Amino acid sequence: MADPRISFVTLGVADLARSRAFYEAWGWVPAQAEGDIVFFQANGVVIALFSLADLADDQGRPGAVLGVGAMTLAQNYPSEAEVDSVYAEALAAGATSLKAPEKVFWGGYSGYVADPDGHVWELAMNPFSPPGPDGSVTLGD
Amino acid sequence: MADPRISFVTLGVADLARSRAFYEAWGWVPAQAEGDIVFFQANGVVIALFSLADLADDQGRPGAVLGVGAMTLAQNYPSEAEVDSVYAEALAAGATSLKAPEKVFWGGYSGYVADPDGHVWELAMNPFSPPGPDGSVTLGD
Repeated sequence: MADPRISFVTLGVADLARSRAFYEAWGWVPAQAEGDIVFFQANGVVIALFSLADLADDQGRPGAVLGVGAMTLAQNYPSEAEVDSVYAEALAAGATSLKAPEKVFWGGYSGYVADPDGHVWELAMNPFSPPGPDGSVTLGD
Repeated sequence: MADPRISFVTLGVADLARSRAFYEAWGWVPAQAEGDIVFFQANGVVIALFSLADLADDQGRPGAVLGVGAMTLAQNYPSEAEVDSVYAEALAAGATSLKAPEKVFWGGYSGYVADPDGHVWELAMNPFSPPGPDGSVTLGD
């Protein structure tokens, strides 16, 4: 059953180095940084910086000029079956499918839907970072 | 000192009834609904639906056509002084001020800044819903 949860908030950014410098100057310390993505551990959720082009591609909208939806709200679930189920429930509720859930290069399973205004939700299973029962994710767990 | 925290994620929506119906059809149950805003309790954070026009107005951009930034990531702090401090730190880091922190009609204290890509952060003190030490907010606490 779908319930309100946010595991990751991913901000699409034009210049990763500039954005990272901004958040670091604001006092944030990255918990992980891997090439083209930077993660900050927040209260039970993770905030990520990711290039706009890579984000559009990952959301199943390669080449898109992102406006609304230049941010991903990610819900993580412990299994592929739960991802499929919540994805199907989203479509039944009237969401637009951007990318049906599929195995992804980093070893997980992920799909994307858009709500009526274009706000983008990722539904994911990450075997390396399983969510707590409430959908919270803690990096390095 | 500013640290990564998200207390509220507020989605700007074109039609509140349509959006509420979508999220309810997806299985979410509102925790509170007050006229022109609907709140869902998520894992340690709150997800809100708010009209695009009201959101633009609240962010200090009345009349704006929202694209990037049609969503607010809110950080709540326990005091006005902490809001002022984190706001000043954001500007020092290169954020654009949308609205300097001020007392607001609902009884709290709130300001808005935009990051280098236009992602919007609200910095707020809400005396009715104080955050936990990690910035999480639980409705009705």
